[in-house]
Amino acid sequence: MMTPMHSPTEPDLASTTNPRVKAVVRLRDRRERDRTGLTVVDGAREVRRAIEAGARIEEAFVHEPFLGGADAGAALGLLRDRGVPVRRTTEPVFEKLAFGARAEGIVAVVHVPGTALDDLVLPAEPLIVVVEGIEKPGNLGAVLRSADGAGADAVIAASPRTDLFNPNTIRASAGTAFVVPLAAAETDAVIAWLGARPIRVVAAHVDAPLPYTEADMRGPVAIVLGSEADGLTGAWSVPGVTAVRLPMRGIADSLNVSVTAAVLLYEARRQRDSFAPPV
Amino acid sequence: MMTPMHSPTEPDLASTTNPRVKAVVRLRDRRERDRTGLTVVDGAREVRRAIEAGARIEEAFVHEPFLGGADAGAALGLLRDRGVPVRRTTEPVFEKLAFGARAEGIVAVVHVPGTALDDLVLPAEPLIVVVEGIEKPGNLGAVLRSADGAGADAVIAASPRTDLFNPNTIRASAGTAFVVPLAAAETDAVIAWLGARPIRVVAAHVDAPLPYTEADMRGPVAIVLGSEADGLTGAWSVPGVTAVRLPMRGIADSLNVSVTAAVLLYEARRQRDSFAPPV
Repeated sequence: MMTPMHSPTEPDLASTTNPRVKAVVRLRDRRERDRTGLTVVDGAREVRRAIEAGARIEEAFVHEPFLGGADAGAALGLLRDRGVPVRRTTEPVFEKLAFGARAEGIVAVVHVPGTALDDLVLPAEPLIVVVEGIEKPGNLGAVLRSADGAGADAVIAASPRTDLFNPNTIRASAGTAFVVPLAAAETDAVIAWLGARPIRVVAAHVDAPLPYTEADMRGPVAIVLGSEADGLTGAWSVPGVTAVRLPMRGIADSLNVSVTAAVLLYEARRQRDSFAPPV
Repeated sequence: MMTPMHSPTEPDLASTTNPRVKAVVRLRDRRERDRTGLTVVDGAREVRRAIEAGARIEEAFVHEPFLGGADAGAALGLLRDRGVPVRRTTEPVFEKLAFGARAEGIVAVVHVPGTALDDLVLPAEPLIVVVEGIEKPGNLGAVLRSADGAGADAVIAASPRTDLFNPNTIRASAGTAFVVPLAAAETDAVIAWLGARPIRVVAAHVDAPLPYTEADMRGPVAIVLGSEADGLTGAWSVPGVTAVRLPMRGIADSLNVSVTAAVLLYEARRQRDSFAPPV
């Protein structure tokens, strides 16, 4: 077993043309992630949270001089406990692996979890976020971080235009991508899935007459958000879906999707925790 | 006067080593912005909003094949009305000017507005956001966008670690940087300024006992947020400042600062608009 941070020997990986290094770098490409079912997690906090959430780690790479802090120590301890290979690298190799210039000294190759809608395990009265047509991995990651904070029980990506475990999603999520239950399906399948359950559906529309604070978001509820570029598709303009709007008091016509998610989720949280009726 | 989009003549600027081009590129450097009092605005929507908000535009650069859409047309019309020089460029010159790879075909050089605290013009019962120690221009821009949406009357940067009109701030703000009244001062000066006015101060702390929904945010109020890395400095732990927390229900210990700003501002909005007491 490797003992990173405690061994005086030479680094294991010193060549940027090593086949293992090249295989990890290829995972920055979506097709390679789709083909292998693997993705890359950068950063000590992110790797720690992925392991703690039960993600299956294939291998990890460290550059010891960059390591430090509680998250790095915890991540390395967890990797050792699980018998995951940890390979030491030189600085040039690490910089090639880490890609986005994280100086935290640890990168892990992780098996992408399943994202089937029917595999979601939910409480009796779930609080769900649905994001339709999301394109930017950073936005999906930010939605996951907001959902984690507000205590949402799941995030569902309807007809996403990015892969859910894109390395940039994981990074923007601050590692919560492996913690918040996450599923994906085409919009029609998501609507059918919601319709088959006693879940109230509240959809954000810029021109809806009803302010979001007047919608009842207690009990089982799904909050539905469109993409920043296009909003929600017409598929959501159906009976049984309550359209709500956020007041926009300035000149901009919309908020960032993770901000909209947080405002709606924390209002749902307020209503659910206080037992107060919406005003 | 220039008539971009309607002239069949050659582009005005075809060389990336032209002194005008080099002068604009130098404005990507903070020292040059501080020295000249100028900054760069990228994008049709951003340029349009800057002009509409009354920003003084020095000159603009366009690459006509990239132009299109309502914002670009409106921006060009406004520039023409104000007699601002608009220089056409070749694609290589434009890509050098636009820097961040925006394909919107318009970049403007803009005079940085004043940001003195005492120049803020506020209504009788203002809703203010204070962000302390903010470092990432993208975060400041996102806070401005959230503040615009929620109808905040001003954003005050306390001891900022970035210049307020960094091009990346303007971009992340979706152009609202020129619309939301913006001021900067050292933390001590901000605290003195607030203390001299009948403004309730509500500060977000991760370990405050009071949930934010239980704080009264009607009337004149300032919502104070720390940096993501360090939180608020001890200067805010003084009598007269009400510390509040956002519930964090997941594994992450904080939200993005623009998300925290939006949740608090929209709760203030809800209280102020509904006349309901906090629950």
